Amino acid sequence: MASEYHTKRRIEFADTDLAGIVHFARFFVFMETAEHEFLRSLGTSVTTTIEGNKIGWPRLSATCEYVSPLRFEEEVDIHVKVTRKGTKSMTYHFEFTRGEELIARGQMSSACCICNPGEKIRAIPIPEALAGRIEDVGSGK
Amino acid sequence: MASEYHTKRRIEFADTDLAGIVHFARFFVFMETAEHEFLRSLGTSVTTTIEGNKIGWPRLSATCEYVSPLRFEEEVDIHVKVTRKGTKSMTYHFEFTRGEELIARGQMSSACCICNPGEKIRAIPIPEALAGRIEDVGSGK
Amino acid sequence: MASEYHTKRRIEFADTDLAGIVHFARFFVFMETAEHEFLRSLGTSVTTTIEGNKIGWPRLSATCEYVSPLRFEEEVDIHVKVTRKGTKSMTYHFEFTRGEELIARGQMSSACCICNPGEKIRAIPIPEALAGRIEDVGSGK
Amino acid sequence: MASEYHTKRRIEFADTDLAGIVHFARFFVFMETAEHEFLRSLGTSVTTTIEGNKIGWPRLSATCEYVSPLRFEEEVDIHVKVTRKGTKSMTYHFEFTRGEELIARGQMSSACCICNPGEKIRAIPIPEALAGRIEDVGSGK
Repeated sequence: MASEYHTKRRIEFADTDLAGIVHFARFFVFMETAEHEFLRSLGTSVTTTIEGNKIGWPRLSATCEYVSPLRFEEEVDIHVKVTRKGTKSMTYHFEFTRGEELIARGQMSSACCICNPGEKIRAIPIPEALAGRIEDVGSGK
Repeated sequence: MASEYHTKRRIEFADTDLAGIVHFARFFVFMETAEHEFLRSLGTSVTTTIEGNKIGWPRLSATCEYVSPLRFEEEVDIHVKVTRKGTKSMTYHFEFTRGEELIARGQMSSACCICNPGEKIRAIPIPEALAGRIEDVGSGK
Repeated sequence: MASEYHTKRRIEFADTDLAGIVHFARFFVFMETAEHEFLRSLGTSVTTTIEGNKIGWPRLSATCEYVSPLRFEEEVDIHVKVTRKGTKSMTYHFEFTRGEELIARGQMSSACCICNPGEKIRAIPIPEALAGRIEDVGSGK
Repeated sequence: MASEYHTKRRIEFADTDLAGIVHFARFFVFMETAEHEFLRSLGTSVTTTIEGNKIGWPRLSATCEYVSPLRFEEEVDIHVKVTRKGTKSMTYHFEFTRGEELIARGQMSSACCICNPGEKIRAIPIPEALAGRIEDVGSGK
């Protein structure tokens, strides 16, 4: 049962914009990739097939607060926390730091869905294979 | 004095991901581009030079709620509203619709800053040239 | 029977990098979007379903030569030309100009393929519905 | 004196498109990042300041041939080779493989330039600090 994960990422040239810093939309890609690494570390994936159904996780919401700019070639630490494991959805919290310095904070919620090609997307309870490996950090944090 | 703006955008192939829909991070680029079009419609730009200083608008926060998926080649309407004009910052609200259908809702706040190369970024009051052209929609909305 | 197309595009903030100019990889997205607009102008699309098969156009090659930098908010003209219509593939040539000035030149080739989900991708002759609307500019150009 | 470099990269969700494979334009970002890692491995960077001048490497050309598709979560090997070290420019060759399988081949040329803000970009001979660390693989390869 895991509820936290840590990864690192080095800023690439294409992550930056003419202001000389990481473009704000890139933080959402960084969060997503950290989320997917977390799932992979648990032996699963964000896209799986269960009983012949394609399981996916469409976003419900995504948010980010920017505290300090990130620059080309810097290495950023990304801390992932499961802040809520619902019946059909999951909420992750993300913290970006460079050494001791806070860079940004973000949050994303996704719904567990059957996403078969040609069918309407519909939410389902998180399959036990995944739900059994993750727990949220609880209301205390 | 303007506080609202409307634009359209057609979904490109590179906007999509393997789920067959627009990748969630792209909505932030769409919001930003709509914001910049709005500023351009007022005869100004998000990057200007005033009295020898480069003015920029680093993000404070960005958020998006996803209601319905968007697909390749669809045309989406983007409605921009200035929900708060502060002394040194601005908050925009965005609504994405396809016909009558709500696709997503977002919000972004930015600080007005002097961003001279080689200097530390620092917030300043929004220059009158810009502040005089924009008003927020007020607390009533 | 069409073999040429023209479109325009305004450079967005997220197209730029820390060098203050459009990131070189974005030109490939610009070419692709112009190609797809061209197909749409002919009443078709890059993704179609013909006799129950999903037709797609995986890239064979893409190339770009960069002559002059493009900057934020500039408007660029994109000229598309079909330089070769083969039996199973298509080659497009692109020219980016700003006024009279040449910005870049590119070329892309794609193979017409059946891309059914779960099946191996395989090349097929370009369906007549599409082949009949396009002609290449010929060896004279 | 180095002329080759090897790195790996795992495909992210945002790298893919609705065809379910890596979007062809992403390969150019992958090449660029591998190039920059190579330079970093030599103790230098693609953006440096030498004698008060900002040195950058605007692209002259970029090209890629696509042999086999890459998918989400796959790990790809990227082999970088300096195929030509000119007086003012550099040409890199890239090979993408997955195990024994060839995925794509690419090439990029860049000019060494002084890119001071507010000045016109101009090509210069590659500074000795960099030129002295790199050699091309020669005409034999």
